[in-house]
Amino acid sequence: MTHDNDTHPPSGYRFSDPQLPRAPWSLADLNNMMAACLLGPDDVAALRRSGPLLDPQREAILDVWYGFVGSHSFLLDSFVDTKTGQPDGDYLSRVRARFGQWILDTARADYDENWLRYQFEIGRRHHRVAKNATDNAHASPLVPFRFLPLLAQPIVDTLRPFLSRGGVTMAEVDAMQNAWRKAVLLQVTLWSYPYIIEGDF
Amino acid sequence: MTHDNDTHPPSGYRFSDPQLPRAPWSLADLNNMMAACLLGPDDVAALRRSGPLLDPQREAILDVWYGFVGSHSFLLDSFVDTKTGQPDGDYLSRVRARFGQWILDTARADYDENWLRYQFEIGRRHHRVAKNATDNAHASPLVPFRFLPLLAQPIVDTLRPFLSRGGVTMAEVDAMQNAWRKAVLLQVTLWSYPYIIEGDF
Repeated sequence: MTHDNDTHPPSGYRFSDPQLPRAPWSLADLNNMMAACLLGPDDVAALRRSGPLLDPQREAILDVWYGFVGSHSFLLDSFVDTKTGQPDGDYLSRVRARFGQWILDTARADYDENWLRYQFEIGRRHHRVAKNATDNAHASPLVPFRFLPLLAQPIVDTLRPFLSRGGVTMAEVDAMQNAWRKAVLLQVTLWSYPYIIEGDF
Repeated sequence: MTHDNDTHPPSGYRFSDPQLPRAPWSLADLNNMMAACLLGPDDVAALRRSGPLLDPQREAILDVWYGFVGSHSFLLDSFVDTKTGQPDGDYLSRVRARFGQWILDTARADYDENWLRYQFEIGRRHHRVAKNATDNAHASPLVPFRFLPLLAQPIVDTLRPFLSRGGVTMAEVDAMQNAWRKAVLLQVTLWSYPYIIEGDF
């Protein structure tokens, strides 16, 4: 699978950066969370098979996802510059570049300490503790919590036609999409951490 | 669709109870949340068609769900009596009766103020603000947040064989299961409210 990171990492992309704050979860915690959402070795294998399929289609996938966000003002609000009242194009495009890399990282499914640490960082960038900072943006200070779990649905639903290209069997499309559903659910759960009252996660 | 509520409501079941605290969301908020997770009129119709199919199978469905919880100590912990160290059978069975009613309520998909109010109440019963109180239980004071979104996956995955009974077409099973996925995701998002730092939901 192509992993862009080595050649041209997106601005602000910090997977495997040892300077990142440590994640508040252990690998044992992660194992329990994976068991809770039924994410097992078959799903990891299916995620990895999805990588080479999705990689060349990433821009088209991002067009669909950004089209969805752009069509709902309550979603686009997270990218609106509070000074101008207009969507911040720079912020949108910087986040988009990392979102494209995220497709590859999700398909890579290497669930180790570095992965946990970057999930924690992604969560912080949605929450007021760190939103806007990476991109020097002046948008709203928070992606409201509610949209983290809810957006797992359109993300994974709209992936289906992209998983169905190139003579893939229906059973294989189902296997890859189910694996993506679990992987995204797991990630949005981890990303929620900064929103949760201390001790309640 | 049968709605048990009129004949023998489970102990502690308070759907439509005007004494319940008001929900912190408006119907406009709910509409945005439904749009975010793609829950539309076709899904509401599919949920309602699932009711008569699932109603007579509720005990078997609950056996599967309780079997899953019982097979993972980190899930069963929420039902363990902190004094005896043993699962509290009374607490488990009272929650189970309401869980059976919840299947019908989810299939009914009447998204109104009463529904929102009871979602808020269900969330509070998972969180330390109200856990155990309804059933006078002495179990752990909190269902950890992480399991609310994550358990949407096994809940909806394990429903599939029950939706597939009685000569239902594959397309219809898919329609009902997809609708359930959205409906459960929406509910676990709402149930998360008491866990979220004030202002961040």
